[in-house]
This record gives sequence, C-alpha cells and structure tokens, in this order.
Amino acid sequence: MKTETFSQLDKVIHEKGRMAIMSSLSSNPDLSFKELKTLLQMTDGNLSVHIRTLQQAGYVAVSKSFLANRPHTSYRLTREGQSAFKAYIELLAQIVEWNQD
Amino acid sequence: MKTETFSQLDKVIHEKGRMAIMSSLSSNPDLSFKELKTLLQMTDGNLSVHIRTLQQAGYVAVSKSFLANRPHTSYRLTREGQSAFKAYIELLAQIVEWNQD
Repeated sequence: MKTETFSQLDKVIHEKGRMAIMSSLSSNPDLSFKELKTLLQMTDGNLSVHIRTLQQAGYVAVSKSFLANRPHTSYRLTREGQSAFKAYIELLAQIVEWNQD
Repeated sequence: MKTETFSQLDKVIHEKGRMAIMSSLSSNPDLSFKELKTLLQMTDGNLSVHIRTLQQAGYVAVSKSFLANRPHTSYRLTREGQSAFKAYIELLAQIVEWNQD
C-alpha cells in the first residue's frame, strides 16, 4: 500500500456530490441541469454550487443553445475533466484492490 | 449505475485522511500514534483530529499499555469499524467498476 495515494486523490472530485456529477457526465455526452437534478436527486442549490466548483476547476463546460425555441443549458466533461476523472478512478481502483479480501 | 451509491458512501470514512487511517488499521492489527504518523505523513494535529472523529463514530478503539516501562498508546479498528470500512470499500468497488474502461 502506498499511503501517498490517498493524498493524491483529487479533492475537487472526491466530494461525494461532485463524484456523482463527474460519473454521470462521464457516461453521457451531455446532460441538462434538470437531467442531472433528476438523476442525482440534488437540490438546485447544491447542484449549482457543485457544478460551479467543477467549472472553476476546468472539468465541466456549459453549452447554451435553443431546443424547440427555448433556451437549453447542458453540461459536459472537458478533456481535462475526463482525464482528471480517469486518474481519480485509477487511484480508487488501487485503494479498492489493497483493501478487498 | 445507481446514483444513490454515492450518497451512501460513509462520510466519516470518505475524508481522505480518515480513509488512509482506516486502510492502515485495516491491514495492521494495531498501530501506535507514531507509527500512523510516520506511515501517513500527517501532522500531530491532523492525525489527532481524525482519530478522534473515528473514535467518536465507534470505528477506532484506543489501547493504553506499557512497553519497556513506558506508556504505549495504540489504535485498532473496532468490529463496527471493520464492517463499516468493508461496506465503504464495496461501494467504491462498484463505482470503480462503472467507471473503468
């Protein structure tokens, strides 16, 4: 076991709500605010704050467009977000491996 | 992917420093404060605070004894701590499985 692995876990991603957002965006090309909210059962406030943190880290990008004449906002992982999430999951996989029977 | 899995992650264990302590105690029958400190490269203050949180959750027990006539304090996982950590690792394993290529 390399104990520094724990401190290498990206703290932007490690928070449970943000892990869930990153994981959802990692398996969908893009998701709207409402889709994320329904999927993750988060309040508007909570989801907004987490998305803002992920945007500020450069991990999530927002696209604003029109859908059936109505403004439509959707979110997707940036390339940096994809690679940060991949690295995070690789560290988790090591931790799981050390600790599983 | 079951998104509620993320919210089920035990927040006492999910903090990175406490994950590292739980993982270390899970692979050693007991460790002294000094051994944990050396292993995890934590400050006294940080380590104390995390151990106290884990004790309050009932996950870590302290044993005070004498070793070569000097007081010796060591820490070990309680049965509750072992089972909470096992459940936590099982959730992480699912999250890793969903997100790995």
